[in-house]
Amino acid sequence: MKQLHRKDLFGWSEFNQERNLDFHSVLWVRVSGNVLIDPIELSEHDFKHLQALGGASIIVITNSDHCRDALNIATQTGATIVGPIGERETFPIACERWITDNEEIVSELIAYQLNGSKTPGELALVLDDSTLITGDLIRSHIAGELCLLPDAKLSDRNLALQSVTRLANLSAIGTVLTGDGWPVFKQGHSALKQILES
Amino acid sequence: MKQLHRKDLFGWSEFNQERNLDFHSVLWVRVSGNVLIDPIELSEHDFKHLQALGGASIIVITNSDHCRDALNIATQTGATIVGPIGERETFPIACERWITDNEEIVSELIAYQLNGSKTPGELALVLDDSTLITGDLIRSHIAGELCLLPDAKLSDRNLALQSVTRLANLSAIGTVLTGDGWPVFKQGHSALKQILES
Repeated sequence: MKQLHRKDLFGWSEFNQERNLDFHSVLWVRVSGNVLIDPIELSEHDFKHLQALGGASIIVITNSDHCRDALNIATQTGATIVGPIGERETFPIACERWITDNEEIVSELIAYQLNGSKTPGELALVLDDSTLITGDLIRSHIAGELCLLPDAKLSDRNLALQSVTRLANLSAIGTVLTGDGWPVFKQGHSALKQILES
Repeated sequence: MKQLHRKDLFGWSEFNQERNLDFHSVLWVRVSGNVLIDPIELSEHDFKHLQALGGASIIVITNSDHCRDALNIATQTGATIVGPIGERETFPIACERWITDNEEIVSELIAYQLNGSKTPGELALVLDDSTLITGDLIRSHIAGELCLLPDAKLSDRNLALQSVTRLANLSAIGTVLTGDGWPVFKQGHSALKQILES
């Protein structure tokens, strides 16, 4: 796995040929149990790396299109899967817990429920007030800049913009770890505001 | 290939298990002939993408450890390979042109010869005064930050720092596309200065 902007954060990626961008997953290493977010399949090398860093206790899925390899990784690691409460009725895999808006998933990892995206109640996660981790709604199609999911995929563009505004008001966000497309490691708050200005 | 920070720049990457970071290559699309820099092997998908964008006219190799798949890609595309004049005597592949310090390789792509790195006269490239493309000396081990090649690999640390100082004095650099490790897409000039402060 690749070192991210903090010593306790790692990522792994997979190039998607259909969209010509990378899909990303995140590992947060914690003494009280590691957290994986939207995990793509791990190579044998990365799985060994994960094990060396303590395995996984919780897998957070931001939306039903980002289940990826969660079920398999949960089986291998014993991790608990948690998902967005907005999709509880139709979620494709079993979750042991359903996450609501403003819920602290584990200490210092807060869920924000987004509206208007392609799935109901997609989650974005804020770690230590300073790192935003996004699923699908907020992404990057041009390196260094953030953008919204294309209009054709949004269920309600105005609600989506309201949700982005809420995140863009979090002035301490330095980094935005996107699920799809290049992450923004510095000045994430400014990049979030620019989505609304564009 | 992945869109970089400009519509005419693309990249592709390969995860390196030994170092736990990505190696990167760059394509610059130009009407008068596309430029590849330190090209890793292209997947079939990416090779088709390259062909759709006009193939390649010139392959620039920054140093002998970054020849990667250049020879094969040159054979497939008909591109000319150019390399650093500092390694002319021992370069592992044939080059049709040897690049010197301050040379304009093609219009708006200027070579800077670096000293003190692990190979003599490693090149860094500056595109349109604003995008720096590096080989090995300047890299990233923590996302969002640049660093030097480890001391044990440098032939002369003081000379290396002088070379970095020269690049850090280019105040218009916005983006640093690293050969190894996460690129810095915004405020590249500030990231270059921080190498010298650390």
